[in-house]
Amino acid sequence: MKKDTLIIGRQPLIEAIEAGRAVDKIFMHKNINGDNIARIRQLAKEHNIPVQVVPVEKLNSLTRHNHQGVVAMAATVQYTDLQQVIDHVVGGGQTPLFVMLDGVTDVRNIGAIARTAVCCGAQAIIIPDKGVGALNEETLKASAGALEKIYISRVNSLAHAVDTLHLNGISVACSEMKAEKKLYNIDWRLPSCVIMGNEERGVQPFLRKASDEYFNIPIAGEFESFNVSVATGIILYEAVKQRGF
Amino acid sequence: MKKDTLIIGRQPLIEAIEAGRAVDKIFMHKNINGDNIARIRQLAKEHNIPVQVVPVEKLNSLTRHNHQGVVAMAATVQYTDLQQVIDHVVGGGQTPLFVMLDGVTDVRNIGAIARTAVCCGAQAIIIPDKGVGALNEETLKASAGALEKIYISRVNSLAHAVDTLHLNGISVACSEMKAEKKLYNIDWRLPSCVIMGNEERGVQPFLRKASDEYFNIPIAGEFESFNVSVATGIILYEAVKQRGF
Repeated sequence: MKKDTLIIGRQPLIEAIEAGRAVDKIFMHKNINGDNIARIRQLAKEHNIPVQVVPVEKLNSLTRHNHQGVVAMAATVQYTDLQQVIDHVVGGGQTPLFVMLDGVTDVRNIGAIARTAVCCGAQAIIIPDKGVGALNEETLKASAGALEKIYISRVNSLAHAVDTLHLNGISVACSEMKAEKKLYNIDWRLPSCVIMGNEERGVQPFLRKASDEYFNIPIAGEFESFNVSVATGIILYEAVKQRGF
Repeated sequence: MKKDTLIIGRQPLIEAIEAGRAVDKIFMHKNINGDNIARIRQLAKEHNIPVQVVPVEKLNSLTRHNHQGVVAMAATVQYTDLQQVIDHVVGGGQTPLFVMLDGVTDVRNIGAIARTAVCCGAQAIIIPDKGVGALNEETLKASAGALEKIYISRVNSLAHAVDTLHLNGISVACSEMKAEKKLYNIDWRLPSCVIMGNEERGVQPFLRKASDEYFNIPIAGEFESFNVSVATGIILYEAVKQRGF
């Protein structure tokens, strides 16, 4: 554990979280109170950061600095602002191919998707900051290192993210069993973002509505029941193929 | 737990395993010995069947019959002889699309692959009987019920299985990073079986040699590192597409 991954003290932690820094875990001394502790608990709840109550010895073992009863571990994955991602990708002469995850909350699943995305040349994964824990060592492991090779954009509104994509000329597509078009009838050579829905409920209606294209993955069997990372692999393979690799 | 899934007694268990019946688990009383117990332990080892030593009360709770200190749970998945599978598929007017798993030993992974295979209209999964535990409730769960909709052929030699495929006019293809052909340059409309290798070591050389076709999955990124179930999904999607779904 590198020291610079620690955030030490109450106010530094509040400021870090408010500034959008991703935090994996907060260690908190059991007998502390006060406004800033209440604020930390509130922020932790909003950002799904686990808070572990520990004896002071644990905190002292993490740092020699004045921790005020609070030490947090910064996330191992760096998040990048969506507009910055677009600027970097387009500025680098690439055609955007992004994956937006709507309701895919399991961080290991996100790691697995990142791995597939990197193989297929997708440049970014867009995730919401609600309902998804900070990406951690386990996610990194599941991604086989891929999370270090792809932009991760963590946004507080997927709807706003779709607006940003549209403003930048990026077409948004979502998979839907009842769609008329098949996956291979979509032109993936265009700047594109595919929204991958939750395995149970699919893509949320407001995101579905905001999409430009709808497609289904052709199946030969009786039922469509791809695991979300398998579905992502199939979709991105089709894109890779169309883009001439 | 249904009673008919139990195999009760020493000789019945030996006969069941020798006849190729898949067994999930053996419960054995702690203080028993003898030739047939030694034989059961040997068979359990050969077939990777876990043996759990239990007090007699556990055995009595499973059955009122004379268990002779041994009760086993039959596997929940039924295996079908490969030639029978081919006869059923071809006889039913379908073009074979099979998946052979070489070194994919995690039973949950096999369940996930079965799920993808069923969506893509593959009719059978061929697995070796060495190094793979009997498919159990956990596998069934991972497959989302798919294991009940696809033939599973458990063979004692993958090399012999390839011979059987060849004798029946089924082309065998394997994925290889260095292959010249791309996945989409293989004609998947022919009767086909794809061999999926272990994630670490790939397809074993003797199976690679016995294959008719080699292909790579096109990638846009720096490295090919698809999870085996994602790779299976991509390959079978290409087959589905070529077959006109």
